Amino acid sequence: MAEIRNIRVMEQILKANDYLASALNAEWDQTRTFVVNLMSSPGAGKTSLLEATLPLLKEEYRMLVLEGDIETERDAERIRTQGVPALQITTGGTCHLESHMIDQAWKLARDRGPFDLLFIENVGNLVCPASYFLGEHLTVVMLSTPEGDDKPMKYPKAFRSSQVFLISKSDLLYALDFSPERARREALQLQPKIETLLVSSKSGEGMQRWIQLLKQQRARRFGS
Amino acid sequence: MAEIRNIRVMEQILKANDYLASALNAEWDQTRTFVVNLMSSPGAGKTSLLEATLPLLKEEYRMLVLEGDIETERDAERIRTQGVPALQITTGGTCHLESHMIDQAWKLARDRGPFDLLFIENVGNLVCPASYFLGEHLTVVMLSTPEGDDKPMKYPKAFRSSQVFLISKSDLLYALDFSPERARREALQLQPKIETLLVSSKSGEGMQRWIQLLKQQRARRFGS
Repeated sequence: MAEIRNIRVMEQILKANDYLASALNAEWDQTRTFVVNLMSSPGAGKTSLLEATLPLLKEEYRMLVLEGDIETERDAERIRTQGVPALQITTGGTCHLESHMIDQAWKLARDRGPFDLLFIENVGNLVCPASYFLGEHLTVVMLSTPEGDDKPMKYPKAFRSSQVFLISKSDLLYALDFSPERARREALQLQPKIETLLVSSKSGEGMQRWIQLLKQQRARRFGS
Repeated sequence: MAEIRNIRVMEQILKANDYLASALNAEWDQTRTFVVNLMSSPGAGKTSLLEATLPLLKEEYRMLVLEGDIETERDAERIRTQGVPALQITTGGTCHLESHMIDQAWKLARDRGPFDLLFIENVGNLVCPASYFLGEHLTVVMLSTPEGDDKPMKYPKAFRSSQVFLISKSDLLYALDFSPERARREALQLQPKIETLLVSSKSGEGMQRWIQLLKQQRARRFGS
């Protein structure tokens, strides 16, 4: 009986999250703000990817970054040095972002817009963020080469809920036993339409394809 | 009101977890089974560490490994090839191990004992496992060098709840901007008594100190 009650509470939390996320999604469609939710383990290179991505899009798009972390302002500070506005959401213990956190941050930021692109960097966690839709148009899961090519099947929800799979830190492949092809195959078993890109924020490998993908996805949604 | 009810449910879950964990701890004291709970992000090298650890202890200790994962039996299979019994706990979505899962697995395994050492490999997640005491004698947090030396402050609970901090994949240091000293200092700010070891399952660096630490901790608890 106690267990049934817990499940009900959980369902209510998830429904409230989706309700608010849908409202955000509708608002972003109106403002033509293309929103990307980026998920990965701690240290897979989410902030580094954004640091490498923003300069390549800055001329053409007005951008905003929302940084999710349990504690510290470090990531937002890193992004601001790129000249792109960034807000830090510190969850104070919660292991993922939820749409009410995004809603609060967005309401603080939107008057500084309009924004063509909004990147949400989720809390570093390959499990929990996958259960919370934040209203985004594109969900991206990132796995770094040092984590191992056997991880998609072990963290299936993150892959099932994503449209793009970034294999990061390709510059370390030479030192590791990591098969991008094996990781890609596993991801495809979980999500047959997932698109896999091999990237390195350090060497620049794959960055042009990633930028192209972002531009195409945005254009598909809103026209160019 | 709804929120207060949720908080209460959460407290009850935590209390039931701790209640059962304490009972497990008492049973392990009786059977002189020294229990280690190993936590890290996905792919930091928990299973590889165990693969490198078990052969160095196998002569002297009877061991058991409980492997936590959301899905797949892969890690338990890897451990079994070492000739050490291993049980896989698949949580089916839950982002951490809880003591009732350990209790179920332990009840299936204990008759194959007695065991001098029990390793619990938690679900790959640097956030949630830190909130769940499993009855262990030693809590170990592992961070791999590719994840970055700025991670302790961003995942404070995992470090506050641990007695040992393993910096893994030291063999990759040459290719990375990672300062073991910075990581150690941050961990000490969060937990002044934490002991930091730099290890590599691949090169063997630090493995003798790690084995020594395990033996000493067990001897301190149970005599040699």
